[in-house]
Amino acid sequence: MNKIHEECGVFGVYAKEKTSVASTAYYGLFALQHRGQESCGIVVNDKGVFTYHKDGGLVNDVFTPAVMEHLGEGNMAVGHVRYGTTGGGGRINAQPIVVNHVKGAMALAHNGNLVNSFELRRELELEGSIFHTTSDTEVISYIITKERLKAPSIEEAVNQAMYRIKGAYSLVVMSATKMIAARDPHGFHPLCYGVTKEGTYVIASETCALDAVSAAFVRDVEPGEIVVFDGDEIRTISDHMGEAEKHLCIFEHIYFSRPDSRIDGVSVHRARVTAGACLAMEHPVQADVVIGVPDSGIDAAIGYARQSGIPYGMGFIKNKYIGRTFIAPGQKAREDKVKIKLNVISETIRGKRVVMVDDSIVRGTTSARIVKLLREAGAKEVHVRSSAPPFLFPCYYGTDVDSQENLIAVNHTMDEIRDIIGADSIGYLNLDHLGMLMGTPKGCGYCAACFDGNYPTEVPTETCKNRFEGKLSERSNNHEKSK
Amino acid sequence: MNKIHEECGVFGVYAKEKTSVASTAYYGLFALQHRGQESCGIVVNDKGVFTYHKDGGLVNDVFTPAVMEHLGEGNMAVGHVRYGTTGGGGRINAQPIVVNHVKGAMALAHNGNLVNSFELRRELELEGSIFHTTSDTEVISYIITKERLKAPSIEEAVNQAMYRIKGAYSLVVMSATKMIAARDPHGFHPLCYGVTKEGTYVIASETCALDAVSAAFVRDVEPGEIVVFDGDEIRTISDHMGEAEKHLCIFEHIYFSRPDSRIDGVSVHRARVTAGACLAMEHPVQADVVIGVPDSGIDAAIGYARQSGIPYGMGFIKNKYIGRTFIAPGQKAREDKVKIKLNVISETIRGKRVVMVDDSIVRGTTSARIVKLLREAGAKEVHVRSSAPPFLFPCYYGTDVDSQENLIAVNHTMDEIRDIIGADSIGYLNLDHLGMLMGTPKGCGYCAACFDGNYPTEVPTETCKNRFEGKLSERSNNHEKSK
Amino acid sequence: MNKIHEECGVFGVYAKEKTSVASTAYYGLFALQHRGQESCGIVVNDKGVFTYHKDGGLVNDVFTPAVMEHLGEGNMAVGHVRYGTTGGGGRINAQPIVVNHVKGAMALAHNGNLVNSFELRRELELEGSIFHTTSDTEVISYIITKERLKAPSIEEAVNQAMYRIKGAYSLVVMSATKMIAARDPHGFHPLCYGVTKEGTYVIASETCALDAVSAAFVRDVEPGEIVVFDGDEIRTISDHMGEAEKHLCIFEHIYFSRPDSRIDGVSVHRARVTAGACLAMEHPVQADVVIGVPDSGIDAAIGYARQSGIPYGMGFIKNKYIGRTFIAPGQKAREDKVKIKLNVISETIRGKRVVMVDDSIVRGTTSARIVKLLREAGAKEVHVRSSAPPFLFPCYYGTDVDSQENLIAVNHTMDEIRDIIGADSIGYLNLDHLGMLMGTPKGCGYCAACFDGNYPTEVPTETCKNRFEGKLSERSNNHEKSK
Amino acid sequence: MNKIHEECGVFGVYAKEKTSVASTAYYGLFALQHRGQESCGIVVNDKGVFTYHKDGGLVNDVFTPAVMEHLGEGNMAVGHVRYGTTGGGGRINAQPIVVNHVKGAMALAHNGNLVNSFELRRELELEGSIFHTTSDTEVISYIITKERLKAPSIEEAVNQAMYRIKGAYSLVVMSATKMIAARDPHGFHPLCYGVTKEGTYVIASETCALDAVSAAFVRDVEPGEIVVFDGDEIRTISDHMGEAEKHLCIFEHIYFSRPDSRIDGVSVHRARVTAGACLAMEHPVQADVVIGVPDSGIDAAIGYARQSGIPYGMGFIKNKYIGRTFIAPGQKAREDKVKIKLNVISETIRGKRVVMVDDSIVRGTTSARIVKLLREAGAKEVHVRSSAPPFLFPCYYGTDVDSQENLIAVNHTMDEIRDIIGADSIGYLNLDHLGMLMGTPKGCGYCAACFDGNYPTEVPTETCKNRFEGKLSERSNNHEKSK
Repeated sequence: MNKIHEECGVFGVYAKEKTSVASTAYYGLFALQHRGQESCGIVVNDKGVFTYHKDGGLVNDVFTPAVMEHLGEGNMAVGHVRYGTTGGGGRINAQPIVVNHVKGAMALAHNGNLVNSFELRRELELEGSIFHTTSDTEVISYIITKERLKAPSIEEAVNQAMYRIKGAYSLVVMSATKMIAARDPHGFHPLCYGVTKEGTYVIASETCALDAVSAAFVRDVEPGEIVVFDGDEIRTISDHMGEAEKHLCIFEHIYFSRPDSRIDGVSVHRARVTAGACLAMEHPVQADVVIGVPDSGIDAAIGYARQSGIPYGMGFIKNKYIGRTFIAPGQKAREDKVKIKLNVISETIRGKRVVMVDDSIVRGTTSARIVKLLREAGAKEVHVRSSAPPFLFPCYYGTDVDSQENLIAVNHTMDEIRDIIGADSIGYLNLDHLGMLMGTPKGCGYCAACFDGNYPTEVPTETCKNRFEGKLSERSNNHEKSK
Repeated sequence: MNKIHEECGVFGVYAKEKTSVASTAYYGLFALQHRGQESCGIVVNDKGVFTYHKDGGLVNDVFTPAVMEHLGEGNMAVGHVRYGTTGGGGRINAQPIVVNHVKGAMALAHNGNLVNSFELRRELELEGSIFHTTSDTEVISYIITKERLKAPSIEEAVNQAMYRIKGAYSLVVMSATKMIAARDPHGFHPLCYGVTKEGTYVIASETCALDAVSAAFVRDVEPGEIVVFDGDEIRTISDHMGEAEKHLCIFEHIYFSRPDSRIDGVSVHRARVTAGACLAMEHPVQADVVIGVPDSGIDAAIGYARQSGIPYGMGFIKNKYIGRTFIAPGQKAREDKVKIKLNVISETIRGKRVVMVDDSIVRGTTSARIVKLLREAGAKEVHVRSSAPPFLFPCYYGTDVDSQENLIAVNHTMDEIRDIIGADSIGYLNLDHLGMLMGTPKGCGYCAACFDGNYPTEVPTETCKNRFEGKLSERSNNHEKSK
Repeated sequence: MNKIHEECGVFGVYAKEKTSVASTAYYGLFALQHRGQESCGIVVNDKGVFTYHKDGGLVNDVFTPAVMEHLGEGNMAVGHVRYGTTGGGGRINAQPIVVNHVKGAMALAHNGNLVNSFELRRELELEGSIFHTTSDTEVISYIITKERLKAPSIEEAVNQAMYRIKGAYSLVVMSATKMIAARDPHGFHPLCYGVTKEGTYVIASETCALDAVSAAFVRDVEPGEIVVFDGDEIRTISDHMGEAEKHLCIFEHIYFSRPDSRIDGVSVHRARVTAGACLAMEHPVQADVVIGVPDSGIDAAIGYARQSGIPYGMGFIKNKYIGRTFIAPGQKAREDKVKIKLNVISETIRGKRVVMVDDSIVRGTTSARIVKLLREAGAKEVHVRSSAPPFLFPCYYGTDVDSQENLIAVNHTMDEIRDIIGADSIGYLNLDHLGMLMGTPKGCGYCAACFDGNYPTEVPTETCKNRFEGKLSERSNNHEKSK
Repeated sequence: MNKIHEECGVFGVYAKEKTSVASTAYYGLFALQHRGQESCGIVVNDKGVFTYHKDGGLVNDVFTPAVMEHLGEGNMAVGHVRYGTTGGGGRINAQPIVVNHVKGAMALAHNGNLVNSFELRRELELEGSIFHTTSDTEVISYIITKERLKAPSIEEAVNQAMYRIKGAYSLVVMSATKMIAARDPHGFHPLCYGVTKEGTYVIASETCALDAVSAAFVRDVEPGEIVVFDGDEIRTISDHMGEAEKHLCIFEHIYFSRPDSRIDGVSVHRARVTAGACLAMEHPVQADVVIGVPDSGIDAAIGYARQSGIPYGMGFIKNKYIGRTFIAPGQKAREDKVKIKLNVISETIRGKRVVMVDDSIVRGTTSARIVKLLREAGAKEVHVRSSAPPFLFPCYYGTDVDSQENLIAVNHTMDEIRDIIGADSIGYLNLDHLGMLMGTPKGCGYCAACFDGNYPTEVPTETCKNRFEGKLSERSNNHEKSK
């Protein structure tokens, strides 16, 4: 674990007529690939007939021409990319989940994590429910289905289900005839929709996926909102809006999302440039060049450079052919692995005092290796700056900051971290400035629990957490894990 | 549909210690491959941790070394091969099914077909159950799980479930600590178990799978019997034994099973030789040579030859490299396809009056093509004999004789069939002699409903049948279907 | 090495117009698959543009729809299947070989083995030739190319080359505009051609490949004959006809060829039945049933049964799903492997005195295992009969009987062999009766050097033999070897 | 053709002892992947036994763990990555080429293009040589082999061959016991070597590959130099040094090479930054932001920004998961494809006057699409700057600028190009400033023939060029082409 991982990206297509919705979903998921590289899936709905494919691997590898042909055309589609923290296998928990129930079929794609899934699951099991997977998403499927038995419509079932499920969820739900987008009342994770020139509606975790399919951004789905696409109509169910304050995960802006996305009205790129500028004000240093660690340290490095007046430089080349990584027999150390992905442009570094900006520091090992590379390339000084504050607390809302023991900042002082990393100085973004990234006052509108421990919801007790760990494991067909 | 298909083969391994149970299951399934070529799966149980892999394709192709390594070792395993009549996709309905419920995990492999699955499914859905597949097996999983909530043990849950599920089922159920084999009260499909020198118990659809893993046959599981493998103990639950008369599917002996298997004490090879001998008595003819259509017409041809005194000859060579068949661009007609698989040994045929014995005649098109090949090879006369009576009724117990419209005998007289096939004479095995195959009086101990319409159970109403047809379809990773 | 292997099968298609010649080649090679399972290849000629694909693996696996699409249409094609004795890798020596030379391109497919290839190769290398493979076929390509520089036509180049190459060769040569079939003066291996209804000419190692593409047999290519397909004309160059006596490899009839083929006018099936009848006369025994070891022992078993009057029975079931064999982790002994492929039908065997007919005995280990299986199944006596005489000498003409050390008959008496195999009696076909298989007097028209040591040509000195062993090895894409 | 392509990258490993040289080659080739994405290959030499694998596809995809295991260990290895301009197929012309000749085996990897290959090939063919491929590399193999017959050593054979082959070549030659690096007298393409801590010598097209395997740069191979690695000795053969003036391809610095490489002592990154600075001086403009087109426009954009004082900004996000690209069914236009790979960060662009720096403009279509994206994102003005001069002449030295008809600058004035691209202004790097990139006077030490038509050698006549076009095409196993 050298990077914190997001668990998911969701995508939905709602067309007026039968068309190549699978292709649209493919491009959308391809643009959301950074949100999850472990497995992916697309479900196509052709007048109530659901055809789907899910597997471990990258969008590019899983959706071969033969698979795309199998998926065929339809008027709706739901897609998902996933990085799974629970369980080992790629395929078993791959989404979207497709279920059959008494009133028809439903497909569900989910980004986030429930905080009461253990309780809900136990309750369901005591009623005789069986679970095929270990994911929250199956729990949500059950809750919606149970509500559907009593509710007059699928959207009302989703609405009722939202009274029972707690935590973080951005959902796309597809029934035989409707498409529904729903976001939890805190709005932990992003969700938006757009429309193409042909009038096809597209729901996505991030706006970059709208761009990828040439759809114009319409608006973000609001925290607590349910948006129903039904015939020619787009309706909102607002029962859960305002139930809670908004708590968008601040790490979406710092690292998870793509710089070309706008989330809840804020450009991710600008948020990062702002973070870099804040860093320059908080932790100034005399230096000759500012470099960013690719890919997500680049934006903040530009911000640092602009604010400080120190020239921005290209410090690294990242090998762009990294795919399914192969661990060759003779590979000695993990240091080699960093070198294979990242090489220093010594021209930029030699004899210089370097400010190296990265998006965050998790365990510190990767930072240490990069600092070492810079010194070997002739850097006179290396000043490390992190555009995220120190990670100190576990996250329960859909990212994998789940154990404190791997977090360098939990057990070490700043001086110790600096020494472990081998830097001449170190500086983290100040917690108090996080609001500036989103243009809000300190503590307003975002969740920074992993940094400050202020959880906007109740959190699960520790005992529940690992109940299903390792209990199930299905073999993916993509034998080598994708990176 | 040129051949009637069985829907499944099941296999279970119960070892005293952690060992290569996946390997044992692999060899067992490989020996049962003739019972289903569409998908296969193995679940390994290592002290309660279930690891599995299921996919569309042949055992040989699905279980690669990498997959076998993933499955690892354990003390129990359940395996399944499947030919699926419902739904199109290979993977979606692949078995065994693995479920998590409140009292642990369970894996289930099933051969057969319920007659009340539609009613059970509707009932379950009205309680809020969700279904991921369209198969009966998921229904059975639910029923067992529901019972498990009230029952003190998994075996008692299976026992209670058997009061609710109706129809044909040979089941292998694996819990964290126990292995259970259960056969429906009619005993529609075979199920037996054996033991290896190392004391590992092995459950299989047919004895040929015991041979393949060097296990000694112990005995058949009796109709209605539940056999529980638990610690060092093997117990029988007999509550459902004697509930119904025995009705073993007679087509198991005629076609489905392998000739080297013994089912309920009767050698399949011998049953077929007997069928051939009966045919010789019922439909004698002056001829020079008796040939069998490979593979399953050979045994009956030997029986016909022995009884009639006409020499047995090798009439055909079957290409043994048939695998995932590729339909090449230039291929004109399906006739070519028969020729690719089967070539006539003209030496045996030229200038001769030939008796051609096949196991059964479904649509008649394949028979017509083979007769044509024989005539082209110089046969003076061709007398077709079928070691099964004419198919006239749909089957509801796990084979795909589900539509009368494709059955040549439903709409044609014997003379018409003879002319359609292009034979000089035609003869089907007489219904009255079916008992001779199993050494029982006429009509006793077997089900011949597809021939005589005498269904031993209530049968589902037509309206239910196609509810889920085509509703779901998941892409298998094996793009070309295996034959 | 439990079986002797043929090295190759060749196939050619010569159509009047652009058509799906690749598809024809595919079906032809599929029918010749028994002649070589290690690698295969097809070269399509579309008006001088050669497109090809070669790889390790079975025809079925190598020629996927995507590959077939790549090959496209043309007016000619050459194909090859190969079992390679030299070198380990599948792809490096795969044929056909395609070369470019000053007068155009040429594709070459070869079945056989030269006895002077080492000398030719050395001579060529001393002139500066470079070799990409270790096969004789590349040597032949060079010789033809060198002659082509001086000759007015490709056929004359082949004719001249035949003065220089010595040994066994059945060749199909394709130039930009012509197709040529050539057979060595001894006619060691078969070669024939036929014609389809559309007027497409088809050249093949065996007639079964003509049948597979619905081509009518025209005639065998004679020993020493060169047949040229050129425009609408079919010409013979007869310069090498009569140069030597005919020496067709007798093992083609005994084992290599398919029973449905006719070679040089003799039915392979009939030759085998005759061998079985001879065995019955030479080595009679009191017994209850005659069984054949699948696949190639069956014909001779029928012959033995007919001649002896002892009933023929089905002794074994061969698993028909054997493909790319997987060696599972837990597999203990090779005995298991025999059991997986072959199971005894105990009904046929129990309590009986059994005559077991096999095509040949190489090392004796497989025979020993099969005898053991029969005894375990309850055979009272097992009498082993081999329809080939004992292997005593290496073969230099294209099969892999290349080392005497693995041949059981070289170092053991009949009694010892009987005991090693565990049989009650043993009997090999008498050398003196080999002519009966082909309807010729003893010693006339066939090569039986592997049995009697009478080599029709000079043979290579031992020192040359292993020069290239293991020097080169290219990775095939089909990781698991096909069986 | 939207980009000019390099044809190759070469790599060699010379270790003192048997070790994981294949793994070293793998990492080296992975770092050189930008020089060729169509096919790749590695040959391992274990005491004279050559094992190899070559195939179409990326290093990452072709060299699976199973392939690496097959390659095994050795004391030497040669590797190659290729972008092939001649012929369509990936595998047929894949390198290294391995040949057997009378004095042993040889492997050859080549980057460049001969100008007299047609003449040499004809000469060889008239002597009876046969060619399996259409590449220059096979011609070089022949010439070296012919010389080897007369020469006392492989290095002397290479030396003699260099009197006969004309044009661009950076070669790595491996014999049973020696490794040789040779560069043509003009030094068209780079070649260098380094050494690891363990004393293993590594030869590579670029220094970035030395970095990737943690080897310290020793020096560039000089134009005309032959470096021989033989036992513990490293010798130079200098007979061809000084034969010609140095003419390093200037496009290596502009586009082909990786920015972190140093070629003949000059940092590629610095050369590009210099190009950007020159552009700023030659084509100044009033603007708000300077952006670079990823990946190779970034360095020059930084140079432009620094020189002009206009802030540098991130204009685009490139999807980093581009791999084997799939062309989905519903994809309408190629414009979509640009969008999938590249998305504009509108935050950087909106309302701004933008300077967009790209490395070069070939056909102009990609530039036009990118300008359109910028305008859609709200750019007020777009000023396009190319860090290469206009392409006007074909290249004969190993890149694919082989046809003038696709070059926008050949048929259009600057104003027309500006209008076609849709820019507000356009500016190309001035020819006179090319020397500044390499720190040499104008026209000294580099080849800029594609820009100025000054060819340092004789060039082939047009008639020869397409002799082998499309004559041969072998199917790669990687069905979808890699990008």
